[in-house]
Amino acid sequence: MNTQELWQKYEEKMFVISAYNYVLGVTGFDIDTISPVKSADYRNERMSYLYGELFSLETDPELIELLEELNKREDLEFEKKQAVKWQLRDLDSFRYIPKELHVEYSQLSMESNQVWKKAKETNDYKLFEPYLVKMIEMNKKLLHYSKTDLTGYDILLDRYEPGMNIQKYDEFFELIKEELVPLIKKITTKKQFDTSFVNLYYPKDEQRKLMRLILEYMNFDFEAGVLAETEHPFMSAINKNDVRVTTHYYENNLMSSIFSVIHEAGHATFNYQVRDDIAQTYCFNSMSSGMHESQSRLMENYIARTSSFWDNLFPKVKELFPQQLEGVDQKEFMEAVNVSQPSLIRTDADELTYPLHILIRYEIEKGLFDGSVDVFDLENVWNDKYEEYLGVRPQKASEGILQDVHWSGGSFGYFPTYALGSGYAAQFMEAMRKDLDVENCLKNNDFQAIKDWLKEHIHQYGGMYLPNEQIRIATGEDFNPKYYTDYLKKKYSKIYGI
Amino acid sequence: MNTQELWQKYEEKMFVISAYNYVLGVTGFDIDTISPVKSADYRNERMSYLYGELFSLETDPELIELLEELNKREDLEFEKKQAVKWQLRDLDSFRYIPKELHVEYSQLSMESNQVWKKAKETNDYKLFEPYLVKMIEMNKKLLHYSKTDLTGYDILLDRYEPGMNIQKYDEFFELIKEELVPLIKKITTKKQFDTSFVNLYYPKDEQRKLMRLILEYMNFDFEAGVLAETEHPFMSAINKNDVRVTTHYYENNLMSSIFSVIHEAGHATFNYQVRDDIAQTYCFNSMSSGMHESQSRLMENYIARTSSFWDNLFPKVKELFPQQLEGVDQKEFMEAVNVSQPSLIRTDADELTYPLHILIRYEIEKGLFDGSVDVFDLENVWNDKYEEYLGVRPQKASEGILQDVHWSGGSFGYFPTYALGSGYAAQFMEAMRKDLDVENCLKNNDFQAIKDWLKEHIHQYGGMYLPNEQIRIATGEDFNPKYYTDYLKKKYSKIYGI
Repeated sequence: MNTQELWQKYEEKMFVISAYNYVLGVTGFDIDTISPVKSADYRNERMSYLYGELFSLETDPELIELLEELNKREDLEFEKKQAVKWQLRDLDSFRYIPKELHVEYSQLSMESNQVWKKAKETNDYKLFEPYLVKMIEMNKKLLHYSKTDLTGYDILLDRYEPGMNIQKYDEFFELIKEELVPLIKKITTKKQFDTSFVNLYYPKDEQRKLMRLILEYMNFDFEAGVLAETEHPFMSAINKNDVRVTTHYYENNLMSSIFSVIHEAGHATFNYQVRDDIAQTYCFNSMSSGMHESQSRLMENYIARTSSFWDNLFPKVKELFPQQLEGVDQKEFMEAVNVSQPSLIRTDADELTYPLHILIRYEIEKGLFDGSVDVFDLENVWNDKYEEYLGVRPQKASEGILQDVHWSGGSFGYFPTYALGSGYAAQFMEAMRKDLDVENCLKNNDFQAIKDWLKEHIHQYGGMYLPNEQIRIATGEDFNPKYYTDYLKKKYSKIYGI
Repeated sequence: MNTQELWQKYEEKMFVISAYNYVLGVTGFDIDTISPVKSADYRNERMSYLYGELFSLETDPELIELLEELNKREDLEFEKKQAVKWQLRDLDSFRYIPKELHVEYSQLSMESNQVWKKAKETNDYKLFEPYLVKMIEMNKKLLHYSKTDLTGYDILLDRYEPGMNIQKYDEFFELIKEELVPLIKKITTKKQFDTSFVNLYYPKDEQRKLMRLILEYMNFDFEAGVLAETEHPFMSAINKNDVRVTTHYYENNLMSSIFSVIHEAGHATFNYQVRDDIAQTYCFNSMSSGMHESQSRLMENYIARTSSFWDNLFPKVKELFPQQLEGVDQKEFMEAVNVSQPSLIRTDADELTYPLHILIRYEIEKGLFDGSVDVFDLENVWNDKYEEYLGVRPQKASEGILQDVHWSGGSFGYFPTYALGSGYAAQFMEAMRKDLDVENCLKNNDFQAIKDWLKEHIHQYGGMYLPNEQIRIATGEDFNPKYYTDYLKKKYSKIYGI
């Protein structure tokens, strides 16, 4: 068969996989947003079954044979070659898992996620602990089926961020600690801004209106996207023309939904802007976690935490909340946006202390996989590390070890990509600023110029390149975390007059 | 194999079917509520493929063999026997369709539905006409694959309402015309109530709050159900513990969302209250359309258009809309709820003129299938009939032939069940009133008593019985449409002092 014919056979199989992914993606979104609680057992049984069917399709020996053959063809176009390469790479992480074990794990993940939700609600870690233990055990067990030269936690780190490992992350976090901890300490001695207006009563209905205004300002395409509500915000890219942003509205917090929506819109924009021909391949969704996170963090922090972003929006915020924001000017609003203070909840953390939240999770995960952290002592370890690095100690499990969804669904090795992504974003911004007067674009309602730059240098490629290749393409250099630490030091020294 | 073993094998196959139905049901709901428009081609291709897979599973010769064998077993419990019987009956309507044709039809239906939406929005019947023509042709073609002694339109009438045919519907509608048209004419000569407050500005957010209050009053179980928004209200029963009510909010109409929510909640309550053992069988969803519609109409008209229903709720409506309802008392509110006036839009029609809207559609469908109505003359035929029966003539296609979703998705023969269901409901109410002081239950916030009565006499059985069997079980008599016409004559004569 010639390469053209091979590719066509391959595409036919991939179409079937995409059909399953489509309905499972939509159903997953439905479960995380509106599906009623009493339907849980019914849906888990059926989802597990279909995940099993999808697994069979994805690991179909005929498909793998096609992939391996295509991988050898010199005359396959570059874009397609990359898609084949990354699909084979990802397949190595799960194709040797027995189907029954895979289905068992799917079922366990869904149950574990449900139990975690309940445990968080009722603030009862003991309820979740046995599931967490099982999830860790299961993940260790599944590692044995991975075809790789790596071992242990390194396998997981490399899976979410190709090229990363314990040694490199250790170096990265060492730099973070060295550069940022002294600054964080200094800030705690400074007089803090009065940001009490942030926690007045902000009715959901008005917050919803504000989110629409923000997304409109960001030129979000509502004909190719959705804004929905959930307990734990996430983005779901069903396809290029169906990217879904979710948020949670807290009526006693003005900032939470704002920055979670902008964050998820950053993710959504990445998938939305993948080039059409690439969006039809495996590379539509093969971005590394760090690369994806770089795009959400870029929007959330580097763009939306600047005053220029709010020049057009702040008057509208005031219109929606005239009483709550009486006497608050844009300067004070920005102080609240950029306040830095050690805190308990990762998702509400400021830019400066954020990487320490990640460091804590990274150290715990490392310990879980090398055996130095006792799984039955996790809550203590968690609390001790918060005290050590941030000087705060959780009083409730829901504000401590139960706060994040990730472990309940088996995402170990994922957290460190959050800090890394923030680092990538700093370097991308430096490059963007060489081509673009970002402040002017924001002031002039030309958000599209920013999106166009991101499309040209990053988004169009989807996950076609390895993280470091992508960084070189967009910035001309290898990844350099100093951009990140320099940015934070400069920004926060200025804010707090240090 | 003994009957037990046979049943188990059958259940295994039905589990797989239920998994596909689950994700396709949820995805269908997603498409009708939030899925973005630009994703349409992507999702249609994939949905069609999976509908094809589901078709293969449902028509799997092994499954049919199991069903036929089970159907012969004397020792199969009654409930299971009924499930087997109805599944075989339904299979006769589609098992002989070639799979490719079925997939083609699925794809066409989805496209046709999309084009209809656009045509309605832009008020452009010519856009939709070619699809409607194709859908009619296709439906005629598919009839040839039905295994039945019936012919033409009778096949469709019997499919949606087992036992019904042209002759019986002609008689039914003849009675409607005879009994109601004179009354409708008389009312048009009477002084009409001032209901202008209904069309003041009612913000969506407040309407949403009201819907929650109404559903709470109706004891709707939000842990086993969903309230969502859509263009064209519908109910979707994903499973017994996931029943979904949808509505559309018009900000210049107080009544529209109220009665559509109550209507759909009536449907939802039927599925929610099916007995557990029956809910696990084919009979969970095998109710006839007329029987299902009887339950939505019962809630919407016979319960919620009485003043007692509003004794507890009306003060809350006033609280939500103090300005709009200033000076409006419950008596005036009820006048607006029960106003009767010939109009263009079926879903907004009052109880009394409603069956004439159905009659018009019934006559047109009959004409389309016996050839007496020219498919290219449909818009004229539609408008003429509205003038003839209701004395009003649509000026826009969106208020005329484009108003309903049904034909765009291929539902021919479905409309007449709407009028029939209203008729069933009248008879059910008579029976309920013998056991229950309905007004007292409503006044005393004991909606559950009404739901319990419906569960005991109707809902628990799901679709286990044929319509007329079910009516006998609940009322002790055969269906008698005089209950319906008597109810309408009595109610509206009183309201208009005739």
